[in-house]
Amino acid sequence: MTDERSSFPERLKSNAVAVEALLETLLDPAVRGGEISRPANLLEAMRHAVLNGGKRLRPFLVSETAALLGGDVQAALRIGAALECIHCYSLVHDDLPAMDNDDMRRGKPTVHVAFDEATAILAGDSLLTFSFDIIAAPETALSDRQKTALVLALARAAGHGGMAGGQALDLAAEKSAPDETGIVLLQSMKTGALLRFACEAGAIIADAAAEDRQRLRAFGEKIGLAFQLADDLLDLTADAAHIGKATGKDAARGKGTLVALHGQPWAEQRLESLVAEAEALLEPYGARSEVLAETARFIANRRN
Amino acid sequence: MTDERSSFPERLKSNAVAVEALLETLLDPAVRGGEISRPANLLEAMRHAVLNGGKRLRPFLVSETAALLGGDVQAALRIGAALECIHCYSLVHDDLPAMDNDDMRRGKPTVHVAFDEATAILAGDSLLTFSFDIIAAPETALSDRQKTALVLALARAAGHGGMAGGQALDLAAEKSAPDETGIVLLQSMKTGALLRFACEAGAIIADAAAEDRQRLRAFGEKIGLAFQLADDLLDLTADAAHIGKATGKDAARGKGTLVALHGQPWAEQRLESLVAEAEALLEPYGARSEVLAETARFIANRRN
Repeated sequence: MTDERSSFPERLKSNAVAVEALLETLLDPAVRGGEISRPANLLEAMRHAVLNGGKRLRPFLVSETAALLGGDVQAALRIGAALECIHCYSLVHDDLPAMDNDDMRRGKPTVHVAFDEATAILAGDSLLTFSFDIIAAPETALSDRQKTALVLALARAAGHGGMAGGQALDLAAEKSAPDETGIVLLQSMKTGALLRFACEAGAIIADAAAEDRQRLRAFGEKIGLAFQLADDLLDLTADAAHIGKATGKDAARGKGTLVALHGQPWAEQRLESLVAEAEALLEPYGARSEVLAETARFIANRRN
Repeated sequence: MTDERSSFPERLKSNAVAVEALLETLLDPAVRGGEISRPANLLEAMRHAVLNGGKRLRPFLVSETAALLGGDVQAALRIGAALECIHCYSLVHDDLPAMDNDDMRRGKPTVHVAFDEATAILAGDSLLTFSFDIIAAPETALSDRQKTALVLALARAAGHGGMAGGQALDLAAEKSAPDETGIVLLQSMKTGALLRFACEAGAIIADAAAEDRQRLRAFGEKIGLAFQLADDLLDLTADAAHIGKATGKDAARGKGTLVALHGQPWAEQRLESLVAEAEALLEPYGARSEVLAETARFIANRRN
């Protein structure tokens, strides 16, 4: 899709456009395949949740790690779309009144505001289910062995030992503030698990050696930690207008963050270390991994 | 597990015990495998939703259809457990205040009552995700081709073109009563899809010919229709104490049913026809399919 020599922002943008187009096709209301009937209102809510013009960072990581190891571009795009469905389902459910009770996301009303709570619950459920449909579908040009590995890795990243479990810990943290170990575990599950999966998925798609798969997973681990730390710093410093949602919210709720625990200078230094560690993991791949290294820096330095 | 010559109630009970034991193992709080950490409260809510001593009709259908065609018993049990996780997730989310707002199920408080709404949402999400984990896990002794086929079939049965879509149509039916075609579509998606999957899954597990797979799916279709019709009749006639939940509830909400549309005598005759059609589909398998035929009769005649 993108020229190997194109710049990081161009590649990120180009991949986001391709992911958006694929999701649009997958959730096209005009398509009524075979015996499948898809209720219009539910499908509209799913589209509202997913077709939001986001950066599509997770699909980008799938595509770039797959490309680094020689994986199929189109298959990577489909796995990226599946991952984005999981990511967006989690946002829809997190935004519900019983959870974070958020009315706005990316400048649009959240799904339960634009539709209703029941539809938001079902739209989230449907997106979660659809992600496994996309992976296993015949249109995804991967072997059954690769598909099974992806289903297992994604289910573990998203389930009660991964993202959903992290969200449960996050709810518990509102009542009883976790210690540093607890904060790290919570963030590793809630935010880290899908980012680790994104990088590991590239290795699975490329049928890479176990060592590469482990290395990319470790890279995903580092950028997951960086992602969360950058988020915590943003929450502390950015003004509401800049990042488009209420800030200081986590702090106000009494949720512990590493930034709150160790201070901003420590956090900024730790971010630098994490980026260096992420880059070091890419060394065996030489110049070809420059885009991934740049992604790590982008994640650490992002201001929205 | 069960003697081939044992009676239908014995086989149903024996399979339910085996499914319960497997689910207990899969959701054992004492097991902390590898890097996985499972928040205790979330796991407890998942257990509350799943370990309820139900009839386990769907897993039974998986096991019996697999056994009919020579599929592996243990693999069928695991796919049955995965299916039960999906079924129970749907009950947890359906019971939520924003959906059917039910406080009791099987004589126990529903998950959002016993825990809280946020935990119920996350427990449902986690059970849904876990079902794909169980299918794809190395412990499930099936080929990757079989696992991929099962993931795809289950995702389609449960997703926006299946059960979740049917639930969305059900919500819409409260506002605007569907016509007969609409009722049939709604029920085919909401209730029928998982029962069709249960029967089709047996054929996939047994690596059966396409014709057998199609035949068992058609059998699942018939018993799905019978299941819903029997449910509608129960709703009309049973007293609250007998089936353990408020009755006449669907009627009170103005939801159309085929019984309401055509009357009880028609419904009873139609039930008989459906059972006969289901039995006719089993003819090629001779006496070996007697348990499945009995299951069809049980579904049509059940009084709770």
